[in-house]
Amino acid sequence: MTTRADGRADDELRPISFTRGFTSHPAGSVLVEFGQTRVMCTASVTEGVPPWRRGSGLGWLTAEYSMLPAATHERNKRESVKGSIGGRTHEISRLVGRSLRACIDLAALGENTIALDCDVLQADGGTRTAAITGAYVALADAVTYLRAAGKLSDPQPLSCAIAAVSVGVVDGRVRLDLPYEEDSRAEVDMNVVATDAGTLVEVQGTGEGATFARSTLDALLDVAAVGTQKLFEAQRAVLAEPYPGQLPGNA
Amino acid sequence: MTTRADGRADDELRPISFTRGFTSHPAGSVLVEFGQTRVMCTASVTEGVPPWRRGSGLGWLTAEYSMLPAATHERNKRESVKGSIGGRTHEISRLVGRSLRACIDLAALGENTIALDCDVLQADGGTRTAAITGAYVALADAVTYLRAAGKLSDPQPLSCAIAAVSVGVVDGRVRLDLPYEEDSRAEVDMNVVATDAGTLVEVQGTGEGATFARSTLDALLDVAAVGTQKLFEAQRAVLAEPYPGQLPGNA
Amino acid sequence: MTTRADGRADDELRPISFTRGFTSHPAGSVLVEFGQTRVMCTASVTEGVPPWRRGSGLGWLTAEYSMLPAATHERNKRESVKGSIGGRTHEISRLVGRSLRACIDLAALGENTIALDCDVLQADGGTRTAAITGAYVALADAVTYLRAAGKLSDPQPLSCAIAAVSVGVVDGRVRLDLPYEEDSRAEVDMNVVATDAGTLVEVQGTGEGATFARSTLDALLDVAAVGTQKLFEAQRAVLAEPYPGQLPGNA
Amino acid sequence: MTTRADGRADDELRPISFTRGFTSHPAGSVLVEFGQTRVMCTASVTEGVPPWRRGSGLGWLTAEYSMLPAATHERNKRESVKGSIGGRTHEISRLVGRSLRACIDLAALGENTIALDCDVLQADGGTRTAAITGAYVALADAVTYLRAAGKLSDPQPLSCAIAAVSVGVVDGRVRLDLPYEEDSRAEVDMNVVATDAGTLVEVQGTGEGATFARSTLDALLDVAAVGTQKLFEAQRAVLAEPYPGQLPGNA
Amino acid sequence: MTTRADGRADDELRPISFTRGFTSHPAGSVLVEFGQTRVMCTASVTEGVPPWRRGSGLGWLTAEYSMLPAATHERNKRESVKGSIGGRTHEISRLVGRSLRACIDLAALGENTIALDCDVLQADGGTRTAAITGAYVALADAVTYLRAAGKLSDPQPLSCAIAAVSVGVVDGRVRLDLPYEEDSRAEVDMNVVATDAGTLVEVQGTGEGATFARSTLDALLDVAAVGTQKLFEAQRAVLAEPYPGQLPGNA
Amino acid sequence: MTTRADGRADDELRPISFTRGFTSHPAGSVLVEFGQTRVMCTASVTEGVPPWRRGSGLGWLTAEYSMLPAATHERNKRESVKGSIGGRTHEISRLVGRSLRACIDLAALGENTIALDCDVLQADGGTRTAAITGAYVALADAVTYLRAAGKLSDPQPLSCAIAAVSVGVVDGRVRLDLPYEEDSRAEVDMNVVATDAGTLVEVQGTGEGATFARSTLDALLDVAAVGTQKLFEAQRAVLAEPYPGQLPGNA
Repeated sequence: MTTRADGRADDELRPISFTRGFTSHPAGSVLVEFGQTRVMCTASVTEGVPPWRRGSGLGWLTAEYSMLPAATHERNKRESVKGSIGGRTHEISRLVGRSLRACIDLAALGENTIALDCDVLQADGGTRTAAITGAYVALADAVTYLRAAGKLSDPQPLSCAIAAVSVGVVDGRVRLDLPYEEDSRAEVDMNVVATDAGTLVEVQGTGEGATFARSTLDALLDVAAVGTQKLFEAQRAVLAEPYPGQLPGNA
Repeated sequence: MTTRADGRADDELRPISFTRGFTSHPAGSVLVEFGQTRVMCTASVTEGVPPWRRGSGLGWLTAEYSMLPAATHERNKRESVKGSIGGRTHEISRLVGRSLRACIDLAALGENTIALDCDVLQADGGTRTAAITGAYVALADAVTYLRAAGKLSDPQPLSCAIAAVSVGVVDGRVRLDLPYEEDSRAEVDMNVVATDAGTLVEVQGTGEGATFARSTLDALLDVAAVGTQKLFEAQRAVLAEPYPGQLPGNA
Repeated sequence: MTTRADGRADDELRPISFTRGFTSHPAGSVLVEFGQTRVMCTASVTEGVPPWRRGSGLGWLTAEYSMLPAATHERNKRESVKGSIGGRTHEISRLVGRSLRACIDLAALGENTIALDCDVLQADGGTRTAAITGAYVALADAVTYLRAAGKLSDPQPLSCAIAAVSVGVVDGRVRLDLPYEEDSRAEVDMNVVATDAGTLVEVQGTGEGATFARSTLDALLDVAAVGTQKLFEAQRAVLAEPYPGQLPGNA
Repeated sequence: MTTRADGRADDELRPISFTRGFTSHPAGSVLVEFGQTRVMCTASVTEGVPPWRRGSGLGWLTAEYSMLPAATHERNKRESVKGSIGGRTHEISRLVGRSLRACIDLAALGENTIALDCDVLQADGGTRTAAITGAYVALADAVTYLRAAGKLSDPQPLSCAIAAVSVGVVDGRVRLDLPYEEDSRAEVDMNVVATDAGTLVEVQGTGEGATFARSTLDALLDVAAVGTQKLFEAQRAVLAEPYPGQLPGNA
Repeated sequence: MTTRADGRADDELRPISFTRGFTSHPAGSVLVEFGQTRVMCTASVTEGVPPWRRGSGLGWLTAEYSMLPAATHERNKRESVKGSIGGRTHEISRLVGRSLRACIDLAALGENTIALDCDVLQADGGTRTAAITGAYVALADAVTYLRAAGKLSDPQPLSCAIAAVSVGVVDGRVRLDLPYEEDSRAEVDMNVVATDAGTLVEVQGTGEGATFARSTLDALLDVAAVGTQKLFEAQRAVLAEPYPGQLPGNA
Repeated sequence: MTTRADGRADDELRPISFTRGFTSHPAGSVLVEFGQTRVMCTASVTEGVPPWRRGSGLGWLTAEYSMLPAATHERNKRESVKGSIGGRTHEISRLVGRSLRACIDLAALGENTIALDCDVLQADGGTRTAAITGAYVALADAVTYLRAAGKLSDPQPLSCAIAAVSVGVVDGRVRLDLPYEEDSRAEVDMNVVATDAGTLVEVQGTGEGATFARSTLDALLDVAAVGTQKLFEAQRAVLAEPYPGQLPGNA
């Protein structure tokens, strides 16, 4: 039978873990691991909203994704040193923001902003999907914090959970959660962001070099659904534990 | 019966037109119109390839998308004046480049680069899909030019045609080729890039605010396929005309 | 007798045309053509004025000139991608702004700004003079729009028309309206901005490589005057047609 | 008896820890903790040297310090997003580089570069001194790696160990290793970089607001020496353990 | 009789002075003063030429103009801190470069570059004309230096002298060499760059707010010629003195 | 006996001079010379304070250091042209600002800012220490100006004088005030900022390449104290002269 280099079945996730309270200053701080991919996801609450939203009474949620220079096999140049943000970084930051805005009622925040920072400490494929999946846990913690602080007009502004996973066609087979070794030679690559209510938030499928049939797309979505189900279970399990830091008041 | 503001059926494209030879310096220059959306797509051939590709013997294809300041209802600030490129511009430029690389054998170019520039003269929704669809026509013309100039090692490096269309859910209905008025209030928005060989190149579906069911995704893909079929016909029709400029030699 | 490559007499303009209503969002939108040089000139009205002018009760007029990457024979790099605006672009943008401010009473606008965007779609010499000449037509249309919208305190804030033309010494002869082929080998190059009241707004004469006698300057100004007269006639003719779009109210 | 908020004696360090092999791609990767301050220090080896050093046959060592946005009590804006590096970041990056260059014979590297990246995951005072102290351990690991790979012309290019500590005057008392709570109200603040050979590499003492007597400087240096001694012991202890990853060859 | 605030006749220059050898590192270094306007002009010789000129065997001459922050009545923000060069700076730098290239045979330099730096220490109108006039003296000194160093293939590459002066219409009168007080309220403002051979290099006349008659242009050119004559005399007088520094060899 | 290249004793300063009123627009303007090192130091008063200080009722003092391109032996590239400020410039600007803030009571200014600009006209080692020493004199003049203008709530906001000097170990000897020739080969390099009240403001000692003993540090501080004493005398002498410009009122 086929075997992936790491011994997994085609529709099997890598070992997933979430370390809540990874750092202590932000309202939510989670180290998420998808195998060797490790992303620090934090949710910070800041006063105010961007200029175009002022006066609306609504809050905002924004996200920034970044890769530490030593996260990859070959050191990559620091974007602050280059003086501008690359297209890939921009694209992923926007994806993370859109994905997480799908689960939160921003009216409940008043004119405050939640900033999600997803910094990749170590990259081994699937950094954007790990970032989204971990950011949801950090966001859930930040919501718990804000609720305890009496800062939410609606005590439960989260309507669903959000998780994301990569799928692809590698060696002609549809596979889940690609590590770098598979990702770098995948014929088709897709990222799926889903809710635990069974709906989709974002689907991005790309065939660079190759193109793909509609039936392949269907197969990819099927296996992605298997993966996101497992991720929702893992998120639920870890969020069943109490808030990892000190809550305001005596919460 | 439902009616769209412009009277179209849900699965009907806006009037599509291609003006080849729109300008005369680049090897390919096309003004593409999807209704009121107008994009100038040019394909310029330059010597050399990016540093990371040197010595490979392979060519490269890159794309840049940009919006003129007065293209939108409210004037938008010029990115050269701001001093940096925004995330949206980056994201679309990358999408256009990936999409067109799917149809061309870059080995045929030798170490030369085709630069596709997609400048939006007027925006009314669907600028990225118009850009991709028009860029294919410009690319086909550039290939004709290069062939006449004896610069191709393989006389037909294009393996298929590429076209793209937007689809979305508006007022609860699945609709094709959204103008700004529909796009700005769509619950789900998807861009589909396809080949005339019946395969997919890129699928990007987003539900900002709303999320969407897998069945909706299927319906969106169905109507997108209707649209891209029409676009391939239009591309074929216009490319049946002779090259609009002077070819090198007497080709 | 002498002949220019395109058969014109030394004091003859290239074919000039103005296409009003070239795009539909801005208050004024004109495609101006001086032979093969084509510039899209738009006049957009935005609320407010720059910080240093706030509280003055006066409006402002600003201009931005830019060259599309594929406008020239060899593709030129996009300034937004380079991350900074070059000296030539800066210089021309400032020239266009100063030139057009010479004809308008900014007090009539209240604290609003007219932004003139001159984007060169195709360059064949004289892009800055075409830009100024076309921008005047776009400005005139924007004034018509603002008047219909009841936004002007003085119904006729334009005191004169503005046009510009290049002149130079080529092959030892004083010539009008140089195309790229002449411009690139001109010994002396001059741009003249004039009003239809017979006065001058800006005179910029340069002899890179060569220097020039005062008598040459006089001869250049003489032939420039011939050219601007023709341009004023062309502007008047095209502006005699009705406003090309929908005016606010039923104006 | 005086007491510091965290119960330490004036000349006592916070709990210090080093986690070697914190990530696995770089040749050296260390998480250093000075109390709540946590810095990820990596040492990456890249081919080549900066242009001004080419042809010298000598290697180079460079360092970049950066603070993650959520590392501080209030989220700080990401420098890549701001588009330029701030003065503080520049200053500390240069300090780290100079400090570590004091212990290594760059000739042994040939024309290769060691890049030290110090990314602050959580800040609680003393981030630059933790960065230097941790970077030494990462550098020692990178040297071990390079030696095993047969890339060093001299098997032991490190002439001494490097550690750094902050000292200051707080509430009129000379104190070692200031956390943020003390640092932010210190009258005098000094950073001392030392070698385990008993010499100094860098001394930076600042009295913003206040100035300080020469005798205070002496007292600060005395207590700093106590601190760096302890740090050298901790470095030695952790480096006595085997290299945390896979060495090239069978090392 | 009319009188200017500083008592000068309308066609009279301010006191002009040149201090050669103002600093000692560059090959030419001149402090030029036009009344209270003081500009440090240096000519530095560097090896090599810009990329587009390599392999031509020709040298290059380039110029950079800059205003120190405290040079003006109100401190102006430093462009290095703003992160980009403004349009006015760009425009003047280009003007200075073009003007001085008119007098030098760049073939004599071989593939080397002369960089002219014009830094305004104090501004009181006419900074660009002072810069050009002073830069010529610095350039002449640099040529003397290069000749002594045996670096010129033609011992006298300067074909003429270059000087520049501002003229304008103030209070309805044509005046020479405007200080800030006059410049800031001039109806017409013109800068004239001339050679001591009686020809013109550059003429830039601008009527912001007002426009001007051709006869005014003539009168401005007449009075500019009076001014440049005086400037050529002053340049000749100061250059009659020996080179102010140490020449290579014993030249 | 030892001899330095310029004949000085090891603990002897280069000739020091201050030219007050070097330029006339800023409230304080001083040309300071330490031998061949020449720095123009200006103190400009501007309304308002940085955003983070607004509403505090307190003033602010900031500093910017910069090197003119031709100040060094080899021309250095202009930072405004490079588009970003280098680490060294940032570091020195911050040092100058901190140093001068040590002597002034910012509450006396109200919400106004003093901007110190230190522009190096010619560099021969010790530019940062000359900048600090000269900036104090410019600051003292600005305070005199502000007092005459009735803009100070406390007539004497300066609590002490500030001066700085470099010291180093060269050829194994501790030396004062290093010129470039010594600085470039110093084993240890230290900058000391002191007050005339006998205290220290900033001590920065660096051993790049070499490290240094605590006893060396002591010897360096001793000789620095000799140097700063002489500098305070020179400052006092020059400030005993009347304010070099026109004071507001008749002060």
